[in-house]
Amino acid sequence: ATKASRVCQAATGDTVLEFGLRRAQGFDGALSATRAAYIGGVHATSNVLAAKILDIPVKGTHAHAWVMMFDTEQEAFERYAEAMPNNCVFLVDTYDTIQGVQRAIEVAKQLRENGHEALGIRLDSGDLIDLSQRARTMLDSQGFENMKIVASDSLNEYSIHHMKSEGAKIDIWGVGTNLVTAQDQPALGGVYKLSAQRPSPDAEWIPKIKLSNSAIKVSNPGRLQILRYHTNDGEWMYDILTQSSGNVESYTSLDGSAQPQPPKGTPVVLLQAAMQQGHRTMPSESLTKIRQRTTESLASLPNEMRQLHVDTPQNPMLDTTVWAIKSSLINAQRRD
Amino acid sequence: ATKASRVCQAATGDTVLEFGLRRAQGFDGALSATRAAYIGGVHATSNVLAAKILDIPVKGTHAHAWVMMFDTEQEAFERYAEAMPNNCVFLVDTYDTIQGVQRAIEVAKQLRENGHEALGIRLDSGDLIDLSQRARTMLDSQGFENMKIVASDSLNEYSIHHMKSEGAKIDIWGVGTNLVTAQDQPALGGVYKLSAQRPSPDAEWIPKIKLSNSAIKVSNPGRLQILRYHTNDGEWMYDILTQSSGNVESYTSLDGSAQPQPPKGTPVVLLQAAMQQGHRTMPSESLTKIRQRTTESLASLPNEMRQLHVDTPQNPMLDTTVWAIKSSLINAQRRD
Repeated sequence: ATKASRVCQAATGDTVLEFGLRRAQGFDGALSATRAAYIGGVHATSNVLAAKILDIPVKGTHAHAWVMMFDTEQEAFERYAEAMPNNCVFLVDTYDTIQGVQRAIEVAKQLRENGHEALGIRLDSGDLIDLSQRARTMLDSQGFENMKIVASDSLNEYSIHHMKSEGAKIDIWGVGTNLVTAQDQPALGGVYKLSAQRPSPDAEWIPKIKLSNSAIKVSNPGRLQILRYHTNDGEWMYDILTQSSGNVESYTSLDGSAQPQPPKGTPVVLLQAAMQQGHRTMPSESLTKIRQRTTESLASLPNEMRQLHVDTPQNPMLDTTVWAIKSSLINAQRRD
Repeated sequence: ATKASRVCQAATGDTVLEFGLRRAQGFDGALSATRAAYIGGVHATSNVLAAKILDIPVKGTHAHAWVMMFDTEQEAFERYAEAMPNNCVFLVDTYDTIQGVQRAIEVAKQLRENGHEALGIRLDSGDLIDLSQRARTMLDSQGFENMKIVASDSLNEYSIHHMKSEGAKIDIWGVGTNLVTAQDQPALGGVYKLSAQRPSPDAEWIPKIKLSNSAIKVSNPGRLQILRYHTNDGEWMYDILTQSSGNVESYTSLDGSAQPQPPKGTPVVLLQAAMQQGHRTMPSESLTKIRQRTTESLASLPNEMRQLHVDTPQNPMLDTTVWAIKSSLINAQRRD
């Protein structure tokens, strides 16, 4: 979902299609990847089963194999247009891309004579910036200004950003492998850390700490909650890691350097119990609702936190009560 | 499996443990990753369920949380030694690694008094080269020359190779995230290409081609087979892509530059039909057999193909019959 939101951010409003089915891992991988991509903001998927199960839009084109099945590319496009007269996006790079574009235009003319409009073409290899510009000129000069140019070819947020900034004439981005495998960060580096413990259900909770040479990796002790504060305009201000039971009266940065102002406004409580004692404590949410909350949460973040490259990640602040417990546990362990 | 074999190659005979359960993806991800890692050469897994289902060795240590559950690290080690007197590998970096090593030695002394020997310690953070050397000295000087040093901490084949070449005193490598997610290459870039087609079951097969500006990406037409030739000493010589029906009389490089010598010896036939018409055509193989074949196949490859960095990947040769069909199809499409 994070990768999808980054890709959509790079596409700055262009339609993004999830094209990753064949590269997803495990027997549920393609379904869960499509679901996550939709939550993250993609507009549709080429995964027909996922679209049906999740009730989300499906969009796609044909494969190279479709073209190769016929004696000529022209014949392949014509048969496709007969089968799907209102859903034609022609994949034009099986043999020669520019020839392919012209053949797609010829079939689009035939479609128009029969009262249908081709939707577009798809570029899947080569210099997509140059080819899209040449294809756009060919389409426009022959009366097909409304035909869209779809691009695919191992795209990710960086290549999309680059192509857009270099003037590629691409309307729709089909993103597959890089999206469904989150290729540059395929593992979520979460760890389990014991933060508090009670010897029996009647006992008090005892805060626990894990030390490290790296201050940022020292764990935060206690039964924790995260509170998110916004400005009056609804923009993110800071997150504060606090005791789940208490109010925040003052806070500090993660390493304890003082930040004396008290927090402002009413926070959003980020952690909510989904299960307790093996039973669900909140109902399942619809995909639409999850997607909408994701969109709204992302929109509330400051611009500098939504760039493709973020130099300084924002750490949460620490409730000074938590900081006091943390300091005393650090000292106790170092004395031990 | 490939990543596992690379990790084992870098470990040059040291024991490698698969530690990746928590970072595997999807509900079968940890099982399939453990299976693949075992095929690729790891010696055991920390995934108890996978070990049971697949009937492979299980090995592991305790978590930081075990140490944090007790008031002191010393107490945590003592309770662990009581529970598992013959299977003690102490994780020593919860608070202070060198202190932790000394505490592990104290508990190992108690174990020895009771007729048991601790197996080792595990380092999971910090400068593993320096810490392993200091820990080795501490263990040896106090009579625990047989205790092993296990390392973990986002290891991969490159970091293992580096640490070994810098003199790290590490006996056993626990490799997790990088292994189960094949972190630097999380997607297998395979594609489906139509290589031949017949209009009906009675018709002749018609070879098909997909062109590309990149010569190496032009597909190879026909009903194909791959033959692997070895020297008399059993070392890999070359692979030849050929028609599944024919004998190889001569071959060429993938771009058609001539290589007139005929192939030598009797090849191994690499492609074998596993399913036909929806039914299995060969029995399922045991994991042991698959792992053994993997080991033998890898051992037959020349050294330069088994380095961590391979500058020039070896492409298969092409049967000149396939090359002739390929050339004529390229010319036909370019004329079209």
